[in-house]
Amino acid sequence: MSTLASQLQQMECHQSVFENEVRKLPLPVCRIFGAEHQPSAVSFTATGQVLSTRDAQAVAERFAQTVKASGNAVLRASATVARVSGKRVAALFSGGPAAGGHNVLCGLKKMLGADNTLLGVKGGPKGLLQGKLFEITEADAANILNTGGFDFLGTDRTKIKTPEQFDQVRKVCIEHQLDAIVIIGGDDSNTNAALLAEFLYSGIKADGSGVQVIGAPKTIDGDLQVPGLLPISFGFDTATRIYAELTGNILQDTRSSLKYWHFVKLMGRSASHVTLEVALQTKPAVTLISEEVAERKLSLDAVVDVIAQAVISRFRAHGHKHGLVLVPEGLIEFIPEMNALIAELNDVLALHAEGFAAAAADARIEFVASRLGAANATLLRKLPAYVVDMLLAERDSHGNLQVSLIPTEQLLIDLTRDRLKAIAPDVPFGSQHHFFGYEGRCGAPTLFDAAYTFNLGLTAGALILAGKTGYMASISGLENGGEPLAIPLTGLINIERRHGKDEYVIEKALVRTSQPAMQYFVSRREAWAADDVFASPGPRQLWGPAAHQMPMTVALNEGAASLLFKIGA
Amino acid sequence: MSTLASQLQQMECHQSVFENEVRKLPLPVCRIFGAEHQPSAVSFTATGQVLSTRDAQAVAERFAQTVKASGNAVLRASATVARVSGKRVAALFSGGPAAGGHNVLCGLKKMLGADNTLLGVKGGPKGLLQGKLFEITEADAANILNTGGFDFLGTDRTKIKTPEQFDQVRKVCIEHQLDAIVIIGGDDSNTNAALLAEFLYSGIKADGSGVQVIGAPKTIDGDLQVPGLLPISFGFDTATRIYAELTGNILQDTRSSLKYWHFVKLMGRSASHVTLEVALQTKPAVTLISEEVAERKLSLDAVVDVIAQAVISRFRAHGHKHGLVLVPEGLIEFIPEMNALIAELNDVLALHAEGFAAAAADARIEFVASRLGAANATLLRKLPAYVVDMLLAERDSHGNLQVSLIPTEQLLIDLTRDRLKAIAPDVPFGSQHHFFGYEGRCGAPTLFDAAYTFNLGLTAGALILAGKTGYMASISGLENGGEPLAIPLTGLINIERRHGKDEYVIEKALVRTSQPAMQYFVSRREAWAADDVFASPGPRQLWGPAAHQMPMTVALNEGAASLLFKIGA
Repeated sequence: MSTLASQLQQMECHQSVFENEVRKLPLPVCRIFGAEHQPSAVSFTATGQVLSTRDAQAVAERFAQTVKASGNAVLRASATVARVSGKRVAALFSGGPAAGGHNVLCGLKKMLGADNTLLGVKGGPKGLLQGKLFEITEADAANILNTGGFDFLGTDRTKIKTPEQFDQVRKVCIEHQLDAIVIIGGDDSNTNAALLAEFLYSGIKADGSGVQVIGAPKTIDGDLQVPGLLPISFGFDTATRIYAELTGNILQDTRSSLKYWHFVKLMGRSASHVTLEVALQTKPAVTLISEEVAERKLSLDAVVDVIAQAVISRFRAHGHKHGLVLVPEGLIEFIPEMNALIAELNDVLALHAEGFAAAAADARIEFVASRLGAANATLLRKLPAYVVDMLLAERDSHGNLQVSLIPTEQLLIDLTRDRLKAIAPDVPFGSQHHFFGYEGRCGAPTLFDAAYTFNLGLTAGALILAGKTGYMASISGLENGGEPLAIPLTGLINIERRHGKDEYVIEKALVRTSQPAMQYFVSRREAWAADDVFASPGPRQLWGPAAHQMPMTVALNEGAASLLFKIGA
Repeated sequence: MSTLASQLQQMECHQSVFENEVRKLPLPVCRIFGAEHQPSAVSFTATGQVLSTRDAQAVAERFAQTVKASGNAVLRASATVARVSGKRVAALFSGGPAAGGHNVLCGLKKMLGADNTLLGVKGGPKGLLQGKLFEITEADAANILNTGGFDFLGTDRTKIKTPEQFDQVRKVCIEHQLDAIVIIGGDDSNTNAALLAEFLYSGIKADGSGVQVIGAPKTIDGDLQVPGLLPISFGFDTATRIYAELTGNILQDTRSSLKYWHFVKLMGRSASHVTLEVALQTKPAVTLISEEVAERKLSLDAVVDVIAQAVISRFRAHGHKHGLVLVPEGLIEFIPEMNALIAELNDVLALHAEGFAAAAADARIEFVASRLGAANATLLRKLPAYVVDMLLAERDSHGNLQVSLIPTEQLLIDLTRDRLKAIAPDVPFGSQHHFFGYEGRCGAPTLFDAAYTFNLGLTAGALILAGKTGYMASISGLENGGEPLAIPLTGLINIERRHGKDEYVIEKALVRTSQPAMQYFVSRREAWAADDVFASPGPRQLWGPAAHQMPMTVALNEGAASLLFKIGA
């Protein structure tokens, strides 16, 4: 075999040039932890801030032990302390993957050190129920450092809800002699962490003590954030930088090829943080923000009008036949009239499931339309067939529409084309569409996400060594060295009516039109629509002068003086 | 306005953190050019290699003046020479954009210096016909250095073919007092450059002299390459690194989420170089190479069988429910039975256009099938409706099927699912699909493409100063400092029968199964299919230890000792 062929073969199994180099990249740690390779254990003291939600009373009853212990007080790392030893800690990923998860494990491993044991759970919460635990070695940690994805452990979406499941977790804790569990996940997974923390609070081990549970805030959607306390969930920066690079590339293509409007749909069903961040990074002609569409009660026609007017005015003013529209994945459900239609469809399809199934394929639309209110029936009848097909398609296990299957970007293209034909038939309109989702969940973490998650892992480990339970790790003060915080999970929990039942939930943080990031966007978007002023943020850099950057939405919303983040000295 | 808001506003119009930093990145130049900021003019002498194609005789007649002048001899830069001054040179982009085009302009500008004039042509060959020329300043060049896309000038796909068009070019040359034109484009555009070089060879200017024409080899598809002389067209490295990053991200997602087979279609209708390069970078379970499918005369069923067997064996051996399949965009046309069907459909649809148009929508398939040979009729009837719709859809202006509209990835998913149901119904098969195309054409160039294109621009400029015409600039010796070459365009030209007419063409370089890159791939693919051994090449780096890398296919095919490229000292 040639020298080169043997070099290439050695790159198999996560040994690309990039992966091998990025493993050597030094990571900054918050000052209080000292050094990356030998971080200090720390104690935690109250910041003085106590959290409260509208359902605090009910939460205090349901989570009696953890609320009593934490008083819902936010804690900060306050002083270095002697190390505790002999703890056995299991960590798992829950929900969709996000960049930096591996570094949470690496930070945990570093903080626990050689005198405590870190176990990995294979395959998410389901793997915990099945007792799929194994010891994570230092070599494992060195191998996954700064790499993307959750592939070292795998993940799944099982919710631990039933008494049998909780009991099964207890058995696994006993069998594996666990002292603590770290759940790395989003809003639902951290709600689950709170429930587990309460259930495992005491009476688990032979001496009557409990098992600690700590959460780490993950989600590329960015909808797990707490103003002033949790600047952002990890994975958001990497995902948005990947989508922003691709969007910037396509923007350059629009002005190079001079012939297409590109419609780019971005992952994020519930919140539009991803879309807003990508817009701030790239400055495209049109950006739709679901929350604003809902707040302004825009109809589908009104949304299409925003796009059509941009197409017309750019052509009239500059002869542009090109542009770019950013569309959040969940837009359809935020358009009030579409939301009303979907809600009534859910009811009608549930109520008349048999009749609907028995109807001939070409009679189904009328079968349903005739059972809808007048406004919804009219709207359904005027939508293109491929959208109606999706609206009438099989519901998920909760009886909900599978929104990601609706080709919103294609619908907007078709409706814009129709509108232009009606009001400005001389304006050319060629189109292309894209959906960026999976591409962004498992990329190598940005330097921001790599450092942030390593410090989240250190903080989670320090909380465990300090005997804490029911907290979510966070790092605030991103411009000023970084401050490890512990947020009491119960201080974030509300009650929400879901499928006819009261459920405890951490509410998703949506984009608010009053936020500085949104206000900045609104102040610039007319200029962005009028002519090409886009920028191309390029591929994320791990070395060199363009590597140290935090998300623009985070910097704006946190009132930062610049985009530079600074963790450590 | 806050400090941060004003910083963000200053990033509009190509002033992102990355763009501002990458403009300062030093670029290496081939030794003979001396220094990046003051490159030397050079003379060119024969390498001793003379090119010949099977149609050399006819080409020598059609291109009498340029063949006589060049003797089809390959030239190398041989010595630094005194600068020529006063030349007026126009440069244009032709065809689809590719990363590095801006740097060709920057290299040209540097070589021409202040004592010659570089003009840019807006909007490609069409802009040349319309005389849309303007002077490119040093400030312009500094502003576009190392940025992606063709957006500084724009591009289009007009072919200059008719006598009227050639005459129009002559007029523009006279009006703008041009001494030379640089055409930055792919195989067709360089064929056009050869035709223009011949047409403009003499008798254009008042003194009877001609206008020089030099080509620069661009195309992300990588199908413009000449073994030993032109290692690769520019833009290929950047596009494949972008696709490989995304594919690597998705591979990590497959092993993180543990539930899907992802089918990734990659741009490249004629050749599978892009797919082969991405496969070498990422090592997915299954990679289809169009040229191999054609050579082995695989049926659609046989292609599906390759995928189905990988799905089954990975599940049986490891319980894997995940994997990734790479599919070249042009695959369908390389499957002999599909190619035969498409060819007969083209004929039948052309012959029976009226009857077809008059047929009812649901009668159209039978209208066509009844006019096909038995084998083609059978194949057409068993394809899914959405593929048949595309096969019967409107032809392009040449009467050809628009292959990019066929959802090959979806077709393979559906046929694989059907196959699995028939032969292994217990094997789970969830799927997702992607098409990466526009994302990769206008990204910021890799360090390889940035350096390669800057040196292509220097070489093109040096050829103009040396009075040469009818050559394509190239850089060989990528491991050893880089050697500027001039390839006589007529030495690459053959005659091809297109739409019933003989046309002069530079044949596209397809993947050959005898190439080292293909042989290495074949030697490893069984191991890649058996279990996850993928690597994730990560985002391309412009700074730091992971920045200096050439394409794997190029390194293998050129017999390089490593992936490191080395231009300059």
